[in-house]
Amino acid sequence: MKTANELFEAYLPMIEKGLDSFLPPENAADPECSVLHRAMRYAVMGGGKRIRPVLTLEFCRLCGGDPAAALPFACALEMIHSYSLIHDDLPCMDDDDLRRGKPSTHKAFGEATALLAGDALLNRAFETALSAGQLPPAAVLQATKCLAELSGVSGMIGGQMIDLESEGRRVGTDTLRRMDQGKTVALIRAACRMGCIIGGRTEMLPAADTYAENIGLAFQIRDDMLDVEGDAALLGKPVGSDAENEKSTYVSLLGLEQASRLVEQMTETAKQTVAPFGESAAALCDLAEMLAHRVH
Amino acid sequence: MKTANELFEAYLPMIEKGLDSFLPPENAADPECSVLHRAMRYAVMGGGKRIRPVLTLEFCRLCGGDPAAALPFACALEMIHSYSLIHDDLPCMDDDDLRRGKPSTHKAFGEATALLAGDALLNRAFETALSAGQLPPAAVLQATKCLAELSGVSGMIGGQMIDLESEGRRVGTDTLRRMDQGKTVALIRAACRMGCIIGGRTEMLPAADTYAENIGLAFQIRDDMLDVEGDAALLGKPVGSDAENEKSTYVSLLGLEQASRLVEQMTETAKQTVAPFGESAAALCDLAEMLAHRVH
Repeated sequence: MKTANELFEAYLPMIEKGLDSFLPPENAADPECSVLHRAMRYAVMGGGKRIRPVLTLEFCRLCGGDPAAALPFACALEMIHSYSLIHDDLPCMDDDDLRRGKPSTHKAFGEATALLAGDALLNRAFETALSAGQLPPAAVLQATKCLAELSGVSGMIGGQMIDLESEGRRVGTDTLRRMDQGKTVALIRAACRMGCIIGGRTEMLPAADTYAENIGLAFQIRDDMLDVEGDAALLGKPVGSDAENEKSTYVSLLGLEQASRLVEQMTETAKQTVAPFGESAAALCDLAEMLAHRVH
Repeated sequence: MKTANELFEAYLPMIEKGLDSFLPPENAADPECSVLHRAMRYAVMGGGKRIRPVLTLEFCRLCGGDPAAALPFACALEMIHSYSLIHDDLPCMDDDDLRRGKPSTHKAFGEATALLAGDALLNRAFETALSAGQLPPAAVLQATKCLAELSGVSGMIGGQMIDLESEGRRVGTDTLRRMDQGKTVALIRAACRMGCIIGGRTEMLPAADTYAENIGLAFQIRDDMLDVEGDAALLGKPVGSDAENEKSTYVSLLGLEQASRLVEQMTETAKQTVAPFGESAAALCDLAEMLAHRVH
């Protein structure tokens, strides 16, 4: 595989099928729980770019592993990403009525069910990772521990908390960077690291970290740029909301030109980092480029 | 140890110290996260009977293991219990302003921080369990998997969902039983099972299940009885709320007398179940009695 598109073509069917099988079925044994199961599936299925699970599978393949062996971890990660979006959209957080062009989970199922569906997805992520069969227990343990650490207070949740505390305040690039290390980079790091662990080449972890950090931050800066220069129709959401909310972003702090330069630099660093993988890293390089130049 | 009191005296200091060390420190590396860490500690520390972690340590000891080896799992369980209380108290759930005589977490820290603190505790529970050192990876995996299964959609969260769907409806004892299997019994089962797993005697799992199921349901029925015949001052909460809310309970469905008989029967079954452990199970028998006859 040489291009990002080939990656998505190869892995998306596996990922969708995996998520479908690892999530609880539509109809629960306890009839009262069917609505909970449906809310979980609503939040996870039929939407999302699946960038994180694709990274897990591809890093596993690059490390000489069978991508299928990493599938439970890839799907666990996507469940954690999805739960964080459900809880982020709740009225007490961002109070967003729409997600990916559909009513957000609490709009579709009510707040209480959405809260429980988020909890249940976080919990299900660990059930899924821990049930990964046919792998040595030590590898399952190492990968799941990596997932737990990067989605908790030192990772994703920490970033969400920094975001919460920064609301309505002007903050500098240092704070933005620490926030994005948690909110955006942590799960991308978990994706790449788990791939290396299941692939059996933990000596590649530092490279995975550097790649993840650079594409993750570039992704976030590109997001801020799109809020200024993007096309609302393509993005599927209004532009200019950061400026309207007087939110500090890389663009408001550095200007469009320097932000764009940063994205280029980080993308270049990410590509150089996977060079040790040789020819077979072409698709990861293309993915970094694709994320840096995306228009939605 | 022959009495429940001796159990608590022996284990409570260990559990409090364990929780203190496994929770993130008051002062976070990212200053914005200190409030999150404090909210997590507020919800877990200085309150709670610690019945579940005591069960884990005692089952581990009965199975011939060192209770200290089971401490991370005992503390993980208490974190899951605590997160479920934070989320249960939120306005979109039970909307309770008080918990254990103190303002509930969202009253003390705000809703958004409470939501994240709950998420972070669930996540931290898995970080804690997975980091249990000096044990064979297969045992850590088995115990953590047990925890994940019993706290998710087939366990605690499933019970919470049945509760949510039963609100304002009259339900029968069958539904009550399925609800309590999830809400109350599941974590107690996890407590007893994890003790057996870490103690290295998985052949005791069926006995652990039966003991847990019987003390768990008896605990719940006793709770319903106390809402009718209890002393508000001793309970630290108003009595009669179930009747006022027209909530179906074991007492409203069966009457006080039959409910009381059920508690006695279940307590007897629990005691007989741990008989294979011989003399050393005396404290577990006394604990079953204590829970059945508690006045708060």
